[in-house]
Amino acid sequence: MPLYESDLDKKRNGQHKLVSRDFKKDNTVIELNGIMIGGESLVIMAGPCSVEDERQIVETARMVKEHGAHVLRGGAFKPRTSPYDFQGLGEKGLQLLALARQKTGLPVVTEVMDTTDVPMVTEYADILQVGSRNMQNFPLLKAVGKINKPVLLKRGMAATLEEFLMSAEYILAEGNNQVILCERGIRTFADHSRNTLDLNVVPMVKKISHLPIIVDPSHGTGRRELVAPMSLAALAAGAAGLIIEVHSRPDQSVTDPFQTLGIEQFSQLMFQINQFSEWRKTYADAPHAN
Amino acid sequence: MPLYESDLDKKRNGQHKLVSRDFKKDNTVIELNGIMIGGESLVIMAGPCSVEDERQIVETARMVKEHGAHVLRGGAFKPRTSPYDFQGLGEKGLQLLALARQKTGLPVVTEVMDTTDVPMVTEYADILQVGSRNMQNFPLLKAVGKINKPVLLKRGMAATLEEFLMSAEYILAEGNNQVILCERGIRTFADHSRNTLDLNVVPMVKKISHLPIIVDPSHGTGRRELVAPMSLAALAAGAAGLIIEVHSRPDQSVTDPFQTLGIEQFSQLMFQINQFSEWRKTYADAPHAN
Amino acid sequence: MPLYESDLDKKRNGQHKLVSRDFKKDNTVIELNGIMIGGESLVIMAGPCSVEDERQIVETARMVKEHGAHVLRGGAFKPRTSPYDFQGLGEKGLQLLALARQKTGLPVVTEVMDTTDVPMVTEYADILQVGSRNMQNFPLLKAVGKINKPVLLKRGMAATLEEFLMSAEYILAEGNNQVILCERGIRTFADHSRNTLDLNVVPMVKKISHLPIIVDPSHGTGRRELVAPMSLAALAAGAAGLIIEVHSRPDQSVTDPFQTLGIEQFSQLMFQINQFSEWRKTYADAPHAN
Amino acid sequence: MPLYESDLDKKRNGQHKLVSRDFKKDNTVIELNGIMIGGESLVIMAGPCSVEDERQIVETARMVKEHGAHVLRGGAFKPRTSPYDFQGLGEKGLQLLALARQKTGLPVVTEVMDTTDVPMVTEYADILQVGSRNMQNFPLLKAVGKINKPVLLKRGMAATLEEFLMSAEYILAEGNNQVILCERGIRTFADHSRNTLDLNVVPMVKKISHLPIIVDPSHGTGRRELVAPMSLAALAAGAAGLIIEVHSRPDQSVTDPFQTLGIEQFSQLMFQINQFSEWRKTYADAPHAN
Repeated sequence: MPLYESDLDKKRNGQHKLVSRDFKKDNTVIELNGIMIGGESLVIMAGPCSVEDERQIVETARMVKEHGAHVLRGGAFKPRTSPYDFQGLGEKGLQLLALARQKTGLPVVTEVMDTTDVPMVTEYADILQVGSRNMQNFPLLKAVGKINKPVLLKRGMAATLEEFLMSAEYILAEGNNQVILCERGIRTFADHSRNTLDLNVVPMVKKISHLPIIVDPSHGTGRRELVAPMSLAALAAGAAGLIIEVHSRPDQSVTDPFQTLGIEQFSQLMFQINQFSEWRKTYADAPHAN
Repeated sequence: MPLYESDLDKKRNGQHKLVSRDFKKDNTVIELNGIMIGGESLVIMAGPCSVEDERQIVETARMVKEHGAHVLRGGAFKPRTSPYDFQGLGEKGLQLLALARQKTGLPVVTEVMDTTDVPMVTEYADILQVGSRNMQNFPLLKAVGKINKPVLLKRGMAATLEEFLMSAEYILAEGNNQVILCERGIRTFADHSRNTLDLNVVPMVKKISHLPIIVDPSHGTGRRELVAPMSLAALAAGAAGLIIEVHSRPDQSVTDPFQTLGIEQFSQLMFQINQFSEWRKTYADAPHAN
Repeated sequence: MPLYESDLDKKRNGQHKLVSRDFKKDNTVIELNGIMIGGESLVIMAGPCSVEDERQIVETARMVKEHGAHVLRGGAFKPRTSPYDFQGLGEKGLQLLALARQKTGLPVVTEVMDTTDVPMVTEYADILQVGSRNMQNFPLLKAVGKINKPVLLKRGMAATLEEFLMSAEYILAEGNNQVILCERGIRTFADHSRNTLDLNVVPMVKKISHLPIIVDPSHGTGRRELVAPMSLAALAAGAAGLIIEVHSRPDQSVTDPFQTLGIEQFSQLMFQINQFSEWRKTYADAPHAN
Repeated sequence: MPLYESDLDKKRNGQHKLVSRDFKKDNTVIELNGIMIGGESLVIMAGPCSVEDERQIVETARMVKEHGAHVLRGGAFKPRTSPYDFQGLGEKGLQLLALARQKTGLPVVTEVMDTTDVPMVTEYADILQVGSRNMQNFPLLKAVGKINKPVLLKRGMAATLEEFLMSAEYILAEGNNQVILCERGIRTFADHSRNTLDLNVVPMVKKISHLPIIVDPSHGTGRRELVAPMSLAALAAGAAGLIIEVHSRPDQSVTDPFQTLGIEQFSQLMFQINQFSEWRKTYADAPHAN
């Protein structure tokens, strides 16, 4: 059910503080190795769902870098529905990510799932991801609020915008202002895609908050053939960037093979993204410019 | 829950027939007064939520035409949650739409809500709209399946893609192949927008079906400031066009004032749409080209 | 998102009129052939999903009557997702229902799907059902508001309580006060049942409205083994009765075989319902007594 | 979308193991201070949302015990949407719970939100609760799987039954078989209640799994006046017990005042529950007996 202007404004003023555009008028831009997240240029994070082995992660990192990605993604700690599914390589995975960074220069984003792992993940990662299932893991939010590295906060599967922003507020309230929001699809009755990518949230976040928001078209669709059109749609809606699952041998991907792009597909998509990016920079009076 | 490749393929092959791309490989393109719906060019339908009076509809028609709209929208029969809310002008509203068409040359799309009204609405309208609340009003689908004018079929608020396409199948099965699908947002827990615009459905429809699909960013967001970014997002996702609520004096709109654009906003949006359209035509290897 | 006391009260006072308990303090009790729907006793409607042939409907009618059902249900006009599925026997089905009534004395509830069928269905049926897919078919609501027989109004798959009650308001506003509401499950992400039976709505309706509300555990679960426990749950929540799919040969049921009870299962369930009914009448200070 | 027999069976056989009734035919009954959770008798857990101070928790504990509650609930660590809302008393709250236990003999259930708190909460609590927001906090599930006390696992707001059971599987896979499942409402579009209480899940869990399932009608409705009817509905659906928010001075409750019962309301409800419990024990051929 819609909350119209006055309700939302009232609600917002009362509760959001640090994340609110009322509190900070200008966009938050996060600098990372010369990349500006939330600035004029788009940020593309790409890589495999899980870190599997050295060849896979280094090969994929080189390929996505070659085609223009700015950040390498890859999971070392994997939240899996079943305890019997692959749970990630843990610290070994973090070391492989660090190796891939060393060989390519790409900064690394990877998920942290528990407060006790925050120091270790902080040591290896450039951006710490808090996943959808932990969006309201408040001790974890507080823990990543105390570190001095950017946090990628994914929207929970059933999180309202209010809840999403208040989870970011937990991080800012602890002193870490470097939060990147990420829409990755919500859970609905719709069964033609793995999740329902809620792009409405992109311009709404930009209206209400100064934090950058990027989109995950891989989890947001769950289908490889939807990743390209929905990537462009996300950028047209105003997203500051994308996080995309890419694997050097996608059909061998241990996790999420249905939604993972191969290099050729990623290369085509990057070509379109770059064209689109040029267009977005030049068209007058962009609707999502703040 | 996601249906992955094989399930969906099996399901599809078994049940869809006339709407399926397996049945008809090439895109259906619907010609209307020289406009090609589902062709290379985008189709923009615009106008007020409800027809209110002669000045309002003629004024708005002239303005949207001036800024590049191809079809005039406007409701004469209005589905309203409450019986005490304005129910539309009925036949008088249809006559005013015909007058606006006469004065501007714009073809008219308007909703029909009951089988008994099909002959009357067919007489006045160029495209008959079946609204979300009637997506599974099967007698109405059969009735519009027997006429010789295009039908705009809006997705129901809780309709799966399967159900949406099977409702179109009802129309085709009666002999009317001129069906335009329309995504207009689904009902979810999200409360930052009136509905959750499910753009994932756009490339999925294009994969499965030969029918054109357009998007309604007005109902799909319910917030005026989201209409422009989500219009561009819909086109980036591959939509064949848009249907947008525009009113010459939006704050006086009897129905849906929160989501209705004024002329200046529509003019800015059309400028962006036209730029985007040029870009979309020229970028190589479009991901949603079939 | 929850609406708390004050919001809901405000909303309600402003909009509901005839359906509201503020307007009419005492429960509406609908008399039908000596049955009191909404009174102290429970009302059980039972029968097949679809009327298939004389033997099936008469056999089933006799069996459900023998085990204590008060009303025979059976569809002559069937809303089906696919145009290629069985659409019901139409008037022939209505005639078979009338025959079953004649042979058993059970009044008949059956669905009407279109305004043009209202006169014909009114001629044969004792209660006209407006199905979920037509809950916001406003011309149909107005048409059944003009007849002098009870109407069973099923909640739409994505209908809020507000919308459900306002659809009833359409019927009352036309002069027909004999409306029976029916919860039949809503559409959610949950996939362990066909729909999510929202029993919260039962005590809320009883708080807000004077109209009787019954529950359909067959569509509300879609699984035969859930029908009995959820029937009792519905009654414990305060429902005035149940509408249950029963077939003399359930596995041969043309429609909805997975959720249809056989006679033995129905007999067991009726035994429990009768026991429960006795218990409900006698326990002191019932929470849902008005 | 429904999963029918064969699909669910196939899915289940492949993935569930220790939680499955195929693995262990007989109901799991958890003994705690002479209470049998999952046995013939119902288990009622009651107490305040949050532990606030000594007087509040001891007063409430005495009152709920007097009216027949078997377990005292109360939160010391509170998951709150906003970082600026009351976060619970932490260890001080655990000490107050232990004091209330000492004074009343009631065992205590309380939430643990982080792996690092598991040792401390285990020291004080008799049952550890994993809340909805942490249902897929897999490190926490593994941690409580290693302790030797019962775990109350609440269903996530957007969790499928499959996911719910697989989260329990995480706990069993670590060696802790004492898991009590808890339905507490899911998130849907419905706005007449805080959550949509999905009672369908109760008989489905009992069919598929040997683990006991209880229901939280307080969070499942979010409205005080719905707690009593939905408590009875939950028991009629086959729940092994209830967990109910009760406060000695409900309108002074710091958290969740709208859904918290006062003692008089709780007393009335316990009277009905006891009557219902007698009835449930004696009626023949209970539909949810396994």
